[in-house]
Amino acid sequence: MINVAIMGHGTVGSGVAELLINNKNRIDNAVKEDVFVKYILDLRKFEGLSYSDKFIDNFELIANDRDIKIVVEVMGGINPAYDFVKRCLEGGKSVVTSNKELVASKGAELISIAEKNNVNFLFEASVGGGIPIIRPMTQCLLANKITEIKGILNGTTNYILNKMIVDNMDFDAALKLAQDNGFAEKNPAADIEGHDACRKICILASLAFGKHIYPEQVKTEGITDITLEDIDYADKLGFVIKLIGMAKKSNNDSISASVRPTLVKKSNLLSQVNGVFNAISVTGDAVDEVVFYGKGAGKMATASAVVADVMDCIGHLDSRKNIYWTDGSKSFVKEFDQKTVLYVRASALNYDSLVGSLKNAFGDIDFIDNKQANEIVFLTCEDFESELNKKISTLNADSIKVLHTLN
Amino acid sequence: MINVAIMGHGTVGSGVAELLINNKNRIDNAVKEDVFVKYILDLRKFEGLSYSDKFIDNFELIANDRDIKIVVEVMGGINPAYDFVKRCLEGGKSVVTSNKELVASKGAELISIAEKNNVNFLFEASVGGGIPIIRPMTQCLLANKITEIKGILNGTTNYILNKMIVDNMDFDAALKLAQDNGFAEKNPAADIEGHDACRKICILASLAFGKHIYPEQVKTEGITDITLEDIDYADKLGFVIKLIGMAKKSNNDSISASVRPTLVKKSNLLSQVNGVFNAISVTGDAVDEVVFYGKGAGKMATASAVVADVMDCIGHLDSRKNIYWTDGSKSFVKEFDQKTVLYVRASALNYDSLVGSLKNAFGDIDFIDNKQANEIVFLTCEDFESELNKKISTLNADSIKVLHTLN
Repeated sequence: MINVAIMGHGTVGSGVAELLINNKNRIDNAVKEDVFVKYILDLRKFEGLSYSDKFIDNFELIANDRDIKIVVEVMGGINPAYDFVKRCLEGGKSVVTSNKELVASKGAELISIAEKNNVNFLFEASVGGGIPIIRPMTQCLLANKITEIKGILNGTTNYILNKMIVDNMDFDAALKLAQDNGFAEKNPAADIEGHDACRKICILASLAFGKHIYPEQVKTEGITDITLEDIDYADKLGFVIKLIGMAKKSNNDSISASVRPTLVKKSNLLSQVNGVFNAISVTGDAVDEVVFYGKGAGKMATASAVVADVMDCIGHLDSRKNIYWTDGSKSFVKEFDQKTVLYVRASALNYDSLVGSLKNAFGDIDFIDNKQANEIVFLTCEDFESELNKKISTLNADSIKVLHTLN
Repeated sequence: MINVAIMGHGTVGSGVAELLINNKNRIDNAVKEDVFVKYILDLRKFEGLSYSDKFIDNFELIANDRDIKIVVEVMGGINPAYDFVKRCLEGGKSVVTSNKELVASKGAELISIAEKNNVNFLFEASVGGGIPIIRPMTQCLLANKITEIKGILNGTTNYILNKMIVDNMDFDAALKLAQDNGFAEKNPAADIEGHDACRKICILASLAFGKHIYPEQVKTEGITDITLEDIDYADKLGFVIKLIGMAKKSNNDSISASVRPTLVKKSNLLSQVNGVFNAISVTGDAVDEVVFYGKGAGKMATASAVVADVMDCIGHLDSRKNIYWTDGSKSFVKEFDQKTVLYVRASALNYDSLVGSLKNAFGDIDFIDNKQANEIVFLTCEDFESELNKKISTLNADSIKVLHTLN
């Protein structure tokens, strides 16, 4: 018999409990073991469930129970999840988590503790909900040198941008609709300011490049400054605006990582990812580009990824899965100058002087001429970002907005 | 030291040899073993390679060498691959293959032989080239009950249809272009008649539903009857034509499997899969729909998937990966009546009688009225296929073409 403890009985935790307890036969058959949920740790009381007798509110019961071989951490947040997970790993228990904040901040340390104690620390559900991505990257693409990862990593912001694009709703109305439909939290900051996507790109980039990339090393920008005018201008130029998380390796092995609203060309598959869906594109030297697509969140989708990790742990109780990454150094991550095309939206009371300065900086370039609003919008030629910024800084503009593009 | 033999030095085989031999350091580091290619079996001579000394032309050397723990089969075809693989497995060697014909025809038997001999039989590269799909389905989605698989499984036919759709080329010209560009073989039958896609849906469906589905159980139809007129009519109706492989489980657990040209609605992500790309959509009860996208073929992409399987074998030399499926019974697979919408293109010299019979059968339904060609085209209402076919059979038409649709 394999004894399992679940820490947390929120959305994902209750899904995990339902799958492990209600589908026990199916799971036992698949792993050829008797998988038994012994404890569920939550401070709240849950009466009337078929498994109400399993609830405990004292972590020490789990920590001190040598029969517990696998612990599922679905509490979220850093405290006390970090301490609990650390103590479980040190106590010889494998841990499965869906907690992206924990993995993005403490992944390298927890992976190293798991290694020392010869147990597993698995977190498939921490990125992309039920979309398989961690295991394909660590196993199927193992023979590849991964050079780039990019994707739509946050369903809430994609839903909001989609409503702006398709239904011409402004940001505030789209956010409210997302909240009303349960796609955004009451305090939406983690989503709309890009922090959630940032944590996910940290995990993916760490996995791809073998060194921990920390959230504070990622240039993170949310979607709160995107207006319906930007959406319209992008459309006229043949693009849609998406929140894109990206990590890229330069030829000399430095890493650039960012989360920012980006103009994505309409012919790019990522431009077709709508609503709350996520899509993650991985580029490897052998496989070229592969894309993983699906719902990035949701109770049962995420729970099914957690349970798959639990089943994998059971198959590897005496052996360890591949070590994922080690701690990085700060110098590992640095913005390097890349060739790119930028979207520039500039306005000035002195419109003629603005247009004149555009010609001086960029020569005879196409631009959207919105004289009525004293505004011009254009895509730059392709050049190194530093060169483009130099030219943009010479524009005689009162205000300038610059966004990246993706072909 | 882990000794490996490669059987076959064609496109994929030479890619595998290059990855294993030229990137030996990277691979050894990842698996923490010395991975050594001892033999490459091929009747042809390959002079001037850095590894020309490894070639042998006698399979018995591999079969009788107890040091060989892992054999890569990349010869293709059933004979002699089937005998060789069987003997390797019986001799206690794990086998990795990219041979979809072999897995589709003999998978259940070879999986069972591997199980008896406590070795692994892995075939990630047999579907979708370098796109991770077998392992995600067997591991990440393990906690899901999979209900449906559908996708674009053949790059050659997708390239041809794409050329017809985008460049208005007729079938013969598009096929010739595909051949000129190396995307279609001189004898293109396996691709354009749907057999290649059929083998892949067999493997995916067997994996998803746990029982072997054999190629002869799959309704298979190629793209040779698709004309530019069909492409145009589909476009007018808001669809594109794709070769879709599909397997679906009914409520009473029977399986329907097919490969056929299908009208795919333009809002469906699969309609956006262009050129030689593949995309595989998997629907599970917990995860809903996930899609895997990438190049479905290509030397290094496929080789990288083979090598990842080799690396996985090395991590599991003393343990077995999950058993994938068992032999099925014929009654397991049967077409069941499903609700659907059909595309109907009917022509008759007596056009007025045709239109009259349409109204009798389907009432006041929209149709494309091509009187000049004595032809009508329409989408039926949604109903059980048997009901729709009854109505279609009452049309006063000289010729009728019916295609399935996908929303």
